[in-house]
Amino acid sequence: MRRGLDADEDYTMSTADISGVVAPVITPFRSDLSVDTDRSIEFCRWLLSQNCGLAVFGTNSEANSLSLDERLDLLEQLVDAGIDPQRMMPGTGCCSTVETAKLTSRAVELGCAGVLMLPPFYYKGVSDDGLFAAFSDVIERVGDARLRVYLYHIPPVAQVGISLALTERLLKAYPGTVVGMKDSSGDWSNSKAMLDAFPDLRMFVGSEAFLLDNMRNGGVGCISAVANLNPGGIDALYRNWQADNADDEQSRLNELRRTLQNYPMIPALKATAAQFFGHAGWSAVRPPLVELSDHEKAAMLSDLKAIGFSMNFEYA
Amino acid sequence: MRRGLDADEDYTMSTADISGVVAPVITPFRSDLSVDTDRSIEFCRWLLSQNCGLAVFGTNSEANSLSLDERLDLLEQLVDAGIDPQRMMPGTGCCSTVETAKLTSRAVELGCAGVLMLPPFYYKGVSDDGLFAAFSDVIERVGDARLRVYLYHIPPVAQVGISLALTERLLKAYPGTVVGMKDSSGDWSNSKAMLDAFPDLRMFVGSEAFLLDNMRNGGVGCISAVANLNPGGIDALYRNWQADNADDEQSRLNELRRTLQNYPMIPALKATAAQFFGHAGWSAVRPPLVELSDHEKAAMLSDLKAIGFSMNFEYA
Repeated sequence: MRRGLDADEDYTMSTADISGVVAPVITPFRSDLSVDTDRSIEFCRWLLSQNCGLAVFGTNSEANSLSLDERLDLLEQLVDAGIDPQRMMPGTGCCSTVETAKLTSRAVELGCAGVLMLPPFYYKGVSDDGLFAAFSDVIERVGDARLRVYLYHIPPVAQVGISLALTERLLKAYPGTVVGMKDSSGDWSNSKAMLDAFPDLRMFVGSEAFLLDNMRNGGVGCISAVANLNPGGIDALYRNWQADNADDEQSRLNELRRTLQNYPMIPALKATAAQFFGHAGWSAVRPPLVELSDHEKAAMLSDLKAIGFSMNFEYA
Repeated sequence: MRRGLDADEDYTMSTADISGVVAPVITPFRSDLSVDTDRSIEFCRWLLSQNCGLAVFGTNSEANSLSLDERLDLLEQLVDAGIDPQRMMPGTGCCSTVETAKLTSRAVELGCAGVLMLPPFYYKGVSDDGLFAAFSDVIERVGDARLRVYLYHIPPVAQVGISLALTERLLKAYPGTVVGMKDSSGDWSNSKAMLDAFPDLRMFVGSEAFLLDNMRNGGVGCISAVANLNPGGIDALYRNWQADNADDEQSRLNELRRTLQNYPMIPALKATAAQFFGHAGWSAVRPPLVELSDHEKAAMLSDLKAIGFSMNFEYA
């Protein structure tokens, strides 16, 4: 049923599954807002050291504020620097299926474990038929049996979502290629409905607040903004979700998330990284996002201190 | 006040203003969904022959379903083919200001009369400060005194709109560069408020249904989907808006628009072009849009016939 692919290829052995805690890796910029590749490599190395997978080019990565060329270049430089592509799930969904296919193909060629694919998100109110055609178009343009697609459902931002009916069609049409989902709806009942309907769907929840629920219902992990700051803490719950104190650990994670959510998330993540890495430039965001003000930064860092949070890492 | 530009350059003489009826030019595809450049050139020539300006890469052009490279290539090929750039206002707004600047720069270098610029539209709920920074970033990256920006306000699709306060800031910061707006809010009261607040703003309404109102309030024209099919009819009202029968002409235009609005607009435009140009391939759309079914095409063409509509052109 997998159209456009060579049925003779043994795709099941060509890539490893990615599970657990994955960060939508924040993207450091230089003062001229160009991508600071060296700092990104360092940050990815630190995340990997915390057992955290790398969803570079997620929403929190400001992926859509980068050009396609910048994304292609950074992905190559990360892999060239020795970042393990089998721990990477780059976001590749653009408005144009031509561009989505180009970035996806490069990710597959580089050996990435999977890709996180937004639906085309410019037109609103599009049909499932149209979205099915869009994903099909990308998969067939890529035409590579190593491809593993994680559908990216984030209606609060993309506005264009991925329904149960569409998921079912894609799973049936592209078994072994469409393998999972990141559900950033913020609605646990949607993740639960997906898990119930599709037992083989590899479900990542888009918030660590739902990590325990997800693991208890057959999910495989989370891809969460806060994993950029607290990968080890979230990984501890992922590993110990069956422990007696798991609910307490979930509550501690929720406290950190609530604290950060008092501020715009992406600027807050980057301001926190700036503080703990000792490099003020980490705070920079590309427009249309706006960096936290000095007042907001101070207030947020005070809030984080009050709950005892620190990014615990060795960073030479 | 115009940052990043050479104050000594006399930018007022370097481009002509574009006014009147402008089509967001529909984009013809081949059967493999690649851009059919030859057919696009022919179509642009026909629109020009009807006194219609060319907003290639508008929403109705499926611009965001094209890659940046495809847009750069088509723009160059149109100009190379002799399409007058002074009659062109290409859409250039991408999610990434880097890409918006690249396409905008090319449009300016090619001599386009202006560009139609969407705000970055991936992140929702962004601030006017962030949008101001985004437009500023593009204008300063382009750094060319010949640039004429028309702000593209289309909240039903982009979700990210352009407020009066943002318009005021941009007009003040970039006089002579930010010169106009296309208002596709579908809300005449918004266009009216803009016209009242900014007498020098060159206002194009995004629907010919508001053309008469716009002209009576100091506007300069319309950029409308239906201009792809009925440029001459809309141009007649534009030229004769002060005539006694102008309201009757407006009513006739509204009847055609209402008929088309019973169908998804972009597929409807392309199916109509396919019929009148005698080339079935014109109907093709890129996903996530879906071509009209044969049943829908027949019903729509019957509806158009019932109101006496025909695309009147000589097309060898």
